[in-house]
Amino acid sequence: MAIDNTHNPALRSWVESANDPATDFPIQNLPLCVYARPEDRHEAGHVHEGGDVSDHGHIHPRIGVMIGDQILDVEMLAQSHQLNSAKEFEEALEFTLQFSDLDGFASLPHQFRTEFRSLVQNFLLDTPAGGQTARRIRTKALTAAKDCLLLPPFVRIPNYTDFYASIHHAHTVGTMFRPDMPLLPNYKHVPIGYHGRASSIIASGEDIFRPSGQQSPPDDQPGALPAFGPCKMLDYELELGCFIGSGNNRGEPIKLSKADEYIFGLCLLNDWSARDMQKWEYQPLGPFLAKNFATSISPAVISLDALEPFRIPGPERTSEDPKPLAYLDDAGVLARGGFDITIEVLIASAQMREKGFGAMRISKGNFKHMYWTFAQMIAHHTSNGCNLQAGDLLGSGTASGPTPESRGCLLELTWDGIDPATRKPKPRKPIALPTGETRTFLADGDEVIMRAYCEKEGFRRIGFGECRGIIYPARP
Amino acid sequence: MAIDNTHNPALRSWVESANDPATDFPIQNLPLCVYARPEDRHEAGHVHEGGDVSDHGHIHPRIGVMIGDQILDVEMLAQSHQLNSAKEFEEALEFTLQFSDLDGFASLPHQFRTEFRSLVQNFLLDTPAGGQTARRIRTKALTAAKDCLLLPPFVRIPNYTDFYASIHHAHTVGTMFRPDMPLLPNYKHVPIGYHGRASSIIASGEDIFRPSGQQSPPDDQPGALPAFGPCKMLDYELELGCFIGSGNNRGEPIKLSKADEYIFGLCLLNDWSARDMQKWEYQPLGPFLAKNFATSISPAVISLDALEPFRIPGPERTSEDPKPLAYLDDAGVLARGGFDITIEVLIASAQMREKGFGAMRISKGNFKHMYWTFAQMIAHHTSNGCNLQAGDLLGSGTASGPTPESRGCLLELTWDGIDPATRKPKPRKPIALPTGETRTFLADGDEVIMRAYCEKEGFRRIGFGECRGIIYPARP
Repeated sequence: MAIDNTHNPALRSWVESANDPATDFPIQNLPLCVYARPEDRHEAGHVHEGGDVSDHGHIHPRIGVMIGDQILDVEMLAQSHQLNSAKEFEEALEFTLQFSDLDGFASLPHQFRTEFRSLVQNFLLDTPAGGQTARRIRTKALTAAKDCLLLPPFVRIPNYTDFYASIHHAHTVGTMFRPDMPLLPNYKHVPIGYHGRASSIIASGEDIFRPSGQQSPPDDQPGALPAFGPCKMLDYELELGCFIGSGNNRGEPIKLSKADEYIFGLCLLNDWSARDMQKWEYQPLGPFLAKNFATSISPAVISLDALEPFRIPGPERTSEDPKPLAYLDDAGVLARGGFDITIEVLIASAQMREKGFGAMRISKGNFKHMYWTFAQMIAHHTSNGCNLQAGDLLGSGTASGPTPESRGCLLELTWDGIDPATRKPKPRKPIALPTGETRTFLADGDEVIMRAYCEKEGFRRIGFGECRGIIYPARP
Repeated sequence: MAIDNTHNPALRSWVESANDPATDFPIQNLPLCVYARPEDRHEAGHVHEGGDVSDHGHIHPRIGVMIGDQILDVEMLAQSHQLNSAKEFEEALEFTLQFSDLDGFASLPHQFRTEFRSLVQNFLLDTPAGGQTARRIRTKALTAAKDCLLLPPFVRIPNYTDFYASIHHAHTVGTMFRPDMPLLPNYKHVPIGYHGRASSIIASGEDIFRPSGQQSPPDDQPGALPAFGPCKMLDYELELGCFIGSGNNRGEPIKLSKADEYIFGLCLLNDWSARDMQKWEYQPLGPFLAKNFATSISPAVISLDALEPFRIPGPERTSEDPKPLAYLDDAGVLARGGFDITIEVLIASAQMREKGFGAMRISKGNFKHMYWTFAQMIAHHTSNGCNLQAGDLLGSGTASGPTPESRGCLLELTWDGIDPATRKPKPRKPIALPTGETRTFLADGDEVIMRAYCEKEGFRRIGFGECRGIIYPARP
C-alpha cells in the first residue's frame, strides 16, 4: 500500500474542498456512493418539489467516491489506468464498477475493497499530476455533489433487518408501555431484531407521505371501533445502517470474529414511524404498517477502514449485566466493538424555512452507547443458518443515549414520564421551535435532518453526510 | 377467447396424463413454473441426497406450464408461433419468457396473463395436430416433470410478508400464551402481518437444517441463563402463499376492489418454525430467528383463473364479529372472497421411508376458514402507501380450521389444552406413527409434505402439487 497511515491529519488532497476542516469527506474518508450527473438524468427522472426520485428508469447512475464537495467517477478513474494497480485487480474493478449500483463491488473480498480505497486515496493526494491523462482525469472525473442526484447505494436492497440495540431506547420506550418491567427478560441476552420492508427504503431527500392507518379505539370506550385516517403521531428514528458486503450460505453461520469482514459500510438511517398505528397493530407479531411506508438512508457508505481510528471498546456493560452467550462473546472483538460517532437530529418546519431560520438541532448523542454491536447483530442474525446477501441492510435501532438530550426519536424526546400520583403518563412536553411553533410529533412540511461524524485529537474529522426527508400531507 | 368454459370437465388434452382424474394438473389448471430440464443442469447444480439445490449458478432454468405429469416449455411454444396470437402479444410473450424466472411475465397486465392461459389451453386441447411444426413441438416442448428440477418461480423474491389470517390458529395459539385473552383486541380489525425473510425462501425439496438458537431459561429458576443449541421444538406451518404480479407505486394504496388484479397466483408455503426460539425472542418485535432459517414453497403458481370455480363467499363472520373498516369492506369483493381449497399435511419419518410405509396424513382442513382474504391483506398492506413489487410473496399465516384435525402446525395439533385444576398446560399429546414412533415436534429425518386441491361437482379437480422438505441435523 502506498500510504501507511491513512488517517494522518496532515494529508492533503488536490481537491481543495477536501482540505476544509469542516468537510465530512476529507481524503481520510472516501465513502462510495451511487449518483447521477446532470447529463445522466433524462426528463422522467427529474426531481421536483413534492416529487419523487424513485423513478430511476430514465436515470443512468454511476458509482462514485465522495471527496470534499465533489464526487469522483471511479469507473472513469479505473478505465484511465490511473490507479497503478495490478492487471487482475483492474479487471475486477472495471467489471464491478460498470454497473448502476454497488451490488458487484460490495461482493468483492474486503481486502480488495481496502486496497481500492488506498489506491483512490493515492490518486487524490496533493501531488503534481503526472502527465496529460492524469490532468485530464482530474478535471473530467469530478462533479460538484450539489449538481448530482444521490441514490441509494443498491437499486434493490435484497433484505432489510432492523435491530433494537440501544438499551436506553428500549428502556425509555418500555417505561411507557410497561412501567413495572421496562426491559424484557430477553433484552440482555438477545440482540432483538425484526425484518423490515426493503421495497420502501428510499434515498435521502425523497418525499415522505404521511401514512394513513388504523388507530386504536379509546381505552375508556369498550366496544368502540378503531378509526382509519392520517397518522397523528408521526415520528423519526435516528439509526445507523450497516450494509452487508459478501453474504453467507444458508446453513452456515458467520462467527463473531469474522463478522466485520462481511460489513460493506455504514450509513445514516431514518426509520420513520407512525406511533399511533404502531401501538394498535404491533401485538403479537411486531411493527408492520407503522414502519413500512418509508425508510430513508444517506447516500455515502462509510467504510470500516475510514472508521478505524474511532473504534473503541464496547459495548458498555455494568456488573449487573449478564455475560453474553459464547456465540456473542469474544474479548478481542468486543475490545474494539464500539464506534465513537456523534449523531444528531435537526428539524426545520415549513415556517422556519420560509422565514429563513436555519434547521434547529433537537438531539445530540453518540453511537458508543449501543448495547449490541453490528458484529454481534451479524453473528446473531446468522446463528440459525439464515443467509445474508450482498446489499442487505441492517438498522441499529433508534440510537438513544443515557441523557434526555440524546434521545433518538420524538416518542422519547417529548416524553415527560409517569405521574407518580395517578400512575398515568404526564402530558407530553412539546419542543419549542424558533418560530413560536411547538412539536410533540411531526407536522406536515417538517424536514428532519440527521447527521453523524467522528472527531478525535490527532485525526481528521470524518462525517456521514446527511439523511433528510420532508413530510408531505397524507394523500386522499 | 377460443374456449368459453375453461372448467368444462369434458375437456381433454392430447397429453394423456392430464386426463387422469387424480392429476393436480389437468387442462383446466395450467400453472406456471420455473424449471430445469436434465440438459439444463451442469455438474455444480446436481441435486444429491443431503445436498442443496440453491446453487443455481450452473443451471439455466426455463419457464414452463405444468400439464399432467409433464412440463411444457412455453418459450419454445411462443417461438414456434403455435399460439395463434396477435403479433404484439407474441412479442411481449417472447420477451418476457426468455428470462430465467417469472419476473417479467408476472408484471404483465392480468388480462394478458388470462389470454395467455387460454391460448396455452387451446394448444393442449385434444385435437389433431395441425401440420408438421405442431407435431414436432408437441414432442419437443414436453419433458416429464419427474426428470426436471423445479425452482422457486422467482430467483429473488423481493419482499416476503407473512400474515396471521386464520382466526382459529390465532385463537388456539393465543390460548397457550394468554388463557384469559386468547384473541387480542386488534385481531378482528387488523389483518395482522409482519415482514418475513426473503433470502431463505427455498424450493420444495431443498434441505432444512435444524436451526440452533437461544432457548429461554427455565421459568422457575430466576437468574438462570438462556441456553444456545439445536432447536428442540421444530415445527412446520401450513400456509398458502400469494405472489404479487405488477406492484403499486409508493404512496398509492391498492383498493380492495382492485386487489385481485395484483395477484399473480397462489402456492403452498411451509413457514418452518422453531417454537422454543420463538417463545424466547418474539417480545416485543415479533418472530425473527425462529422463522428466517427457511421457508419452503411449492413450484406451481396456481392462477386465479384456474381457481375461479372454487371461489365462495367469505370470509366467515358471525354476528359477534365487527364490521371491517371501510377500506377492508366491499360487499361485491367479499361475496367471492373465500376459496374452497382442501389443504393437507403428511409426514414420513426416516424409519417410515426405510420400512416402506407411505407418508401419513396428520391434518386436513380447508382454506375457506380464513378470517381475512388475500385481497384484504393486499388492501391493508398498501393502505399506508407501502409499495408492493412484482414477485413479492404474501403468506396467509397458518391455515388452521375450527376442528382439531384441521390444525395446521404441530404446536396446535399436539396441544392438549389447559388443566383446569392447575391452570397449567397439560402434557402434549404425541402423534403415533405407523412405525411405533411418536412426534410432538419434528425429528431429524422427518419429511413434511403439504398438498392442496379443489374439488366441486361438475368441475375437474385441480391441485397445487406438493411442498416437501426433509429435516437434516443441526450443523455443528
